Amino acid sequence: LGSNSIETNSQTEWTDVQKKIIPWKNSTPNLDLELAFQGRAAKLGKSNSRLIVVASLIDKPTNLGGLCRTSEIFGASALVVGSLHYMQDKQFQHLSVSAEQWLPIIEVKPSQLVDYLQQKKTEGYTIIGVEQTAKSFDLTEYCFPEKSLLLLGNEHEGIPANLIHQLDVCVEIPQQGIIRSLNVHVSGALLIWEYTRQQVIKQRQQK
Amino acid sequence: LGSNSIETNSQTEWTDVQKKIIPWKNSTPNLDLELAFQGRAAKLGKSNSRLIVVASLIDKPTNLGGLCRTSEIFGASALVVGSLHYMQDKQFQHLSVSAEQWLPIIEVKPSQLVDYLQQKKTEGYTIIGVEQTAKSFDLTEYCFPEKSLLLLGNEHEGIPANLIHQLDVCVEIPQQGIIRSLNVHVSGALLIWEYTRQQVIKQRQQK
Repeated sequence: LGSNSIETNSQTEWTDVQKKIIPWKNSTPNLDLELAFQGRAAKLGKSNSRLIVVASLIDKPTNLGGLCRTSEIFGASALVVGSLHYMQDKQFQHLSVSAEQWLPIIEVKPSQLVDYLQQKKTEGYTIIGVEQTAKSFDLTEYCFPEKSLLLLGNEHEGIPANLIHQLDVCVEIPQQGIIRSLNVHVSGALLIWEYTRQQVIKQRQQK
Repeated sequence: LGSNSIETNSQTEWTDVQKKIIPWKNSTPNLDLELAFQGRAAKLGKSNSRLIVVASLIDKPTNLGGLCRTSEIFGASALVVGSLHYMQDKQFQHLSVSAEQWLPIIEVKPSQLVDYLQQKKTEGYTIIGVEQTAKSFDLTEYCFPEKSLLLLGNEHEGIPANLIHQLDVCVEIPQQGIIRSLNVHVSGALLIWEYTRQQVIKQRQQK
């Protein structure tokens, strides 16, 4: 579904963009890449939010592929992964249904995350961890800033202590069941949706 | 994760419940089954909502297993599937992480859905289709009744016309991307979450 729904208008332009999917390096955000993607998306009438989804701690290609599809559909400005190699994975591609062609994908290795998060803070982003802690906000009570960065935890270990210290806030999803926790793609999707819902309502009120 | 987190207190009781997972038949709702499950869940401190998730049109065991996990975590009162055989599927079990042990699973074949939906209407449920139609409500604007039944569409064909006629309302998720549509497990999860969020806020206001 969706994988063949849009023809690529300009193969040359897309090749240019693909070349620009390069690893993130300290203090040199890929402004060129971001602008190239935004220009391409704008031509297709797509609007982008100021939401960055950081999935560098996630291991499973199925979860990453699913997050790629969901992030693209809600107009996230970028998906950050631990390795660009995941994009060659068959399971990733099966779940992403080619969404990676329409969403900037940035590589930030887990070892680079502290630097990356600090850089994003200086750019005005609020760093939001999706994690159950004693100080977490309930998702039904949290109001997302426009510039939000979501840090998702590893499937088994969540967010490690050194990164918890980098967060501005933790948000948790209230759960009523016996089964302990949601799948990380679903957790991410609920926060992406909640961010989107709040932005839609704000925009409606401003009119 | 979660699959071994709770020991079964009483094997006898659980065997009784398993025997009661039987196909739904016209006009004979499984009240025994429902009560047995509710009693078992209540002993573990679990609260159940009045939300029924109908996944009879869904084909993929991975989507059904994921929906089972998500429905259980948000305390849905039942998950309806097209065939109980899915529960023996390895992919279902991998994704459900044993949630089917804590959530009533009811079998309603696609050919029985018209009768089933009509029965549920007489029980006071609002029948909500998750589908994009000219008359669909935007999920950011829809207010869920306490007794809500969500009908999810098939991965490829959505909800067929004869069932669209049975719906009280259609709800769609506003999407901004180039990729056409969300995965059906994710769509279902967002509606289950939105129902839950609204119920939590209502309960908070009543206090």
